[in-house]
Amino acid sequence: MKKILECVPNFSEGRDLEKIEKIVDSFRGRADVKLLDYQLDKDHNRLVVTLVGTPEAIKPAVIAAMGVAIELIDMRQHEGQHPRMGAIDVVPFIPVKDMSMTEAVDISKEVAREVSETYSLPVFLYERSARSPERQNLAAIRKGEFEGMAAKIRDPKWYPDFGPKEIHPTAGVTAVGARMPLVAFNVNLDTANMDIANAVARKVRHVSGGLRYCKGIGVALKERGIVQVSMNMTDYTKTALYSSFELVRMEARRYGINVVGSEIVGLVPMEALVDTAAYYLGLENFTINQVLEYRLME
Amino acid sequence: MKKILECVPNFSEGRDLEKIEKIVDSFRGRADVKLLDYQLDKDHNRLVVTLVGTPEAIKPAVIAAMGVAIELIDMRQHEGQHPRMGAIDVVPFIPVKDMSMTEAVDISKEVAREVSETYSLPVFLYERSARSPERQNLAAIRKGEFEGMAAKIRDPKWYPDFGPKEIHPTAGVTAVGARMPLVAFNVNLDTANMDIANAVARKVRHVSGGLRYCKGIGVALKERGIVQVSMNMTDYTKTALYSSFELVRMEARRYGINVVGSEIVGLVPMEALVDTAAYYLGLENFTINQVLEYRLME
Repeated sequence: MKKILECVPNFSEGRDLEKIEKIVDSFRGRADVKLLDYQLDKDHNRLVVTLVGTPEAIKPAVIAAMGVAIELIDMRQHEGQHPRMGAIDVVPFIPVKDMSMTEAVDISKEVAREVSETYSLPVFLYERSARSPERQNLAAIRKGEFEGMAAKIRDPKWYPDFGPKEIHPTAGVTAVGARMPLVAFNVNLDTANMDIANAVARKVRHVSGGLRYCKGIGVALKERGIVQVSMNMTDYTKTALYSSFELVRMEARRYGINVVGSEIVGLVPMEALVDTAAYYLGLENFTINQVLEYRLME
Repeated sequence: MKKILECVPNFSEGRDLEKIEKIVDSFRGRADVKLLDYQLDKDHNRLVVTLVGTPEAIKPAVIAAMGVAIELIDMRQHEGQHPRMGAIDVVPFIPVKDMSMTEAVDISKEVAREVSETYSLPVFLYERSARSPERQNLAAIRKGEFEGMAAKIRDPKWYPDFGPKEIHPTAGVTAVGARMPLVAFNVNLDTANMDIANAVARKVRHVSGGLRYCKGIGVALKERGIVQVSMNMTDYTKTALYSSFELVRMEARRYGINVVGSEIVGLVPMEALVDTAAYYLGLENFTINQVLEYRLME
């Protein structure tokens, strides 16, 4: 079975198409690396690339692209709406197939060490790769952003995990880590009442008493005149999509409100949907090896 | 996107392991052909091989394997419980990914023509490849089996679609065709009453008034003391798994009986389960392109 790793590097350049193409080009024409998608956002001034491939092939591709980005992006000139702390802001690795989280963490550490040495770049390990709980959360690391980072990493509490204890003059700092795939899962309610959307979200999301691997907020779909519970499923292997769906339905019912549909934004691992089908059909002894396409990927 | 075709050739040899290995070997070590499974049955004296791959790669592999089988199998010596009419009894082609049924039918006809010429083998086209309604059903073609086939194909009504109008002396005749993937889907009921299982099956299956692409019978699970509605879903793109599941549940209810689980036997195309998950979650605007693993197969 071939191991498959996903990587979603975020670069701080969303406007200069020539630079963007040069960065993205690092991922093209490589055996066992597939460039699935890249999205640039001019307001955020940010480029998000999605690639998958074998760990052996992904690693040098990402390291090369980071080198290109360091050469092209000058953070002293960068402005945009999205918080950012470096030319390569964050590099998450996501185990997709036949890889454990431990293996993904190992890859993230290898990449972190190598880029810190090659490019004299301070690197923080975050999420599952973090060496202490306070570094798990990317927002905590990124606080102060590029402009505040020069001072921040002189504080022993914020020494980087790899590389020099001073920022790269033009590229700042980078966070590298491993995490589970995120599934963006939204459930629509037949009401325009945002109070209800928020009340339901509070019951379903982890932080206020709900499901362990579910984040959620209420969102208004103004054009349709309805509201949505917008969720990020942060570990679908432990908190299932159907669990959050049924909990939204259950909680909405107390307000006399119905679920009128749902959506998955972006990509979703096959297993999250297979698990959902298996739940509703009550499938016994079903394994993902019975999925024809899964066998094709062996 | 790479086209993927499945082929499940049935050979009339389930006992002689040396011969079986020689046949199966035809499918090994070929680029773009994956041997997923092969099962031999001594009572049936039959070998069922499951392979997938690109149509260009599958075609020569199947033709080569048929040549090996014709060389090794002498139907004059063959006996077994399963009905059969040739050394290669039947060769179904199944479109799996980015292939239309029309393309699979075309491949089946190309293979039928080529093996009939190369091996002087009479070939019948069946299922979706059949040239007349009475040849769609394999059982109708196979009636009389190997022993009766010499006389049968002299009747103009049963002239083969390709090849000589007399049987191959040792290999008999073969049926080649294209069909949809079958999904073997069984739903368990919390009763030991076979009358209920059969009554529910009658309401769900096509032949007695139920769903167009569903076959079904009642089956006793003696060890568990329950019964099962055992179904073959013959076109899951038109009759969904969840439709038959919900119809079984609905019909069982009139007897005060509950569904206590279900099972899928063997392989199932990803789309059948994704479609089921999308139904129960009420997913709007979801496409299979959002499934990460599907994108990996591009």
